[in-house]
Amino acid sequence: MVTLRDVRDAAKRIEGVAHRTPVIQSRTLNDRAGARVFLKAENLQRMGAFKFRGAYNAISRLSAEQLTRGIAAFSSGNHAQAVALAARELGSTAVIVMPADTPVSKLDAVREYGAEIVTYDRYTEDREAIARRLAEERGLALIPPYDHPDIIAGQGTAALELLEEVGELDAIVVPISGGGLIAGSATAAKGVQPSIRVVGVEPEAGDDTRRSLAAGERVRIDVPRTIADGLTVSTPGELTFPINRALVDEIVLVSDDELRDAMRFAVDRLKLVIEPSAATTLAALLNHRLDPVPARIGVIISGGNVGAARLAELLG
Amino acid sequence: MVTLRDVRDAAKRIEGVAHRTPVIQSRTLNDRAGARVFLKAENLQRMGAFKFRGAYNAISRLSAEQLTRGIAAFSSGNHAQAVALAARELGSTAVIVMPADTPVSKLDAVREYGAEIVTYDRYTEDREAIARRLAEERGLALIPPYDHPDIIAGQGTAALELLEEVGELDAIVVPISGGGLIAGSATAAKGVQPSIRVVGVEPEAGDDTRRSLAAGERVRIDVPRTIADGLTVSTPGELTFPINRALVDEIVLVSDDELRDAMRFAVDRLKLVIEPSAATTLAALLNHRLDPVPARIGVIISGGNVGAARLAELLG
Repeated sequence: MVTLRDVRDAAKRIEGVAHRTPVIQSRTLNDRAGARVFLKAENLQRMGAFKFRGAYNAISRLSAEQLTRGIAAFSSGNHAQAVALAARELGSTAVIVMPADTPVSKLDAVREYGAEIVTYDRYTEDREAIARRLAEERGLALIPPYDHPDIIAGQGTAALELLEEVGELDAIVVPISGGGLIAGSATAAKGVQPSIRVVGVEPEAGDDTRRSLAAGERVRIDVPRTIADGLTVSTPGELTFPINRALVDEIVLVSDDELRDAMRFAVDRLKLVIEPSAATTLAALLNHRLDPVPARIGVIISGGNVGAARLAELLG
Repeated sequence: MVTLRDVRDAAKRIEGVAHRTPVIQSRTLNDRAGARVFLKAENLQRMGAFKFRGAYNAISRLSAEQLTRGIAAFSSGNHAQAVALAARELGSTAVIVMPADTPVSKLDAVREYGAEIVTYDRYTEDREAIARRLAEERGLALIPPYDHPDIIAGQGTAALELLEEVGELDAIVVPISGGGLIAGSATAAKGVQPSIRVVGVEPEAGDDTRRSLAAGERVRIDVPRTIADGLTVSTPGELTFPINRALVDEIVLVSDDELRDAMRFAVDRLKLVIEPSAATTLAALLNHRLDPVPARIGVIISGGNVGAARLAELLG
């Protein structure tokens, strides 16, 4: 298991390296949501998403020898950039296994951080197997996107900062993919304030965690086809699932149309660029998915890596 | 004249009403600019721009009787929203004279804040005359967009907060329209740190302040045709010009294409929505208009009111 202590230790490791991102409030959002909402703007984090927190925390704990040999990772996008940047910051190198249909802006960003990219077809190939083979062949440390205690603890630092800054909250709302962000957030939030309600949000087409929690075991669904390209896993993580089963209070779903509307709201009213995966939580609030509505809600805005051309397309 | 003391007094008046906006840093921007850059994100200010600071400061100083009679204002956009919101916050009402070709998102926002709108043709009619007549007829207090000491002092509070937060800077870079923001910023910045270099940025098509400073007197140009719809004045303010003549060190120009590129950079790399007028300062840094390049640069990102549809068009 991961504990509040692990999250606090991670917070010390990333201090001065990761941004302490701002908490943003909007009267218009409060009016629309019927609550006081505090947005932890991880789209303004380094490399544009919360993922840097976990990657840096995990890689900083590797031996000097391992850092010399290098890192391997597989990711649909943001974890790739996070590992590439964290590896470079720690004087190491990274090889990233990425889906061939990853948005070009994300491929470019990973290359800019100096990492090598190996692509695969996410509808037919097993990224984890490819990455494991690469890691074995080259002696690389495999840093998974969510199923790792140091990743989970690192991701929890955003919720920890949020609670430190705004004080007690009635609920925290977090997007779910593999479950690392919400597992870390729930560990941090319930550690600091046991009464807090932890709400996860999934796209309608990618409700593997909701189904798994209902079934009491990890359920596998088809690879989700949704505009939320960061949330396309088929099944919850092995490590994250038991944590989320213990700590997550409810899961709500949002449609792709609601994600588009939430992105438009973010541009028009918040002046923030958020990626479709990050729009899940905002969409849940704008469409009153939480019942009853908590009075004070913390929200993790998970990332902003959408690219100008794709954003224009989604807003158009 | 306006003094540092006036800016500090304004800061007290707006405290707890205006947002203390975050200061944002980006490694990529630093690399591109060849400097350490601190962005004061006034696009995240209430109503989406710095203008709320000046409007609230000015309106809060009116008598109770005047607040009951109401406010009048003329503006190409953001000052309109600022006056509408500040009037509502202070229990007053507002009538705003706005160009007929104002982006719909700005008209809607002003209406949402409960103000009445009167439109005019900005290529043929005199908005100031229209507003003065209205104010006289109805007994309204006319709050001009820049030529007013309380407006100038209020706008200076953003630069004051920036210097308080990040410490000494070598330069501060500010967009220029009527000159209220830069007059207030220069007053605050040189008051706190006399050695600071104050740089103004204008669109190439709207360089009335650059020409006026060169001529030593206020020069009038044709109404500028630029995508920077917030910077389309023809001549510097009567009150702002002498302040800027005394305190502004240099003015640099940027093209509309450079504004579009800077907006795209803001979306792709900063995850911020900024309006074309606000992109001036970023464009100046990305295109190395400052020579020599100061080591530590403060930038006022003036606003984010562009609207999702227009943003998509500009990015496309």
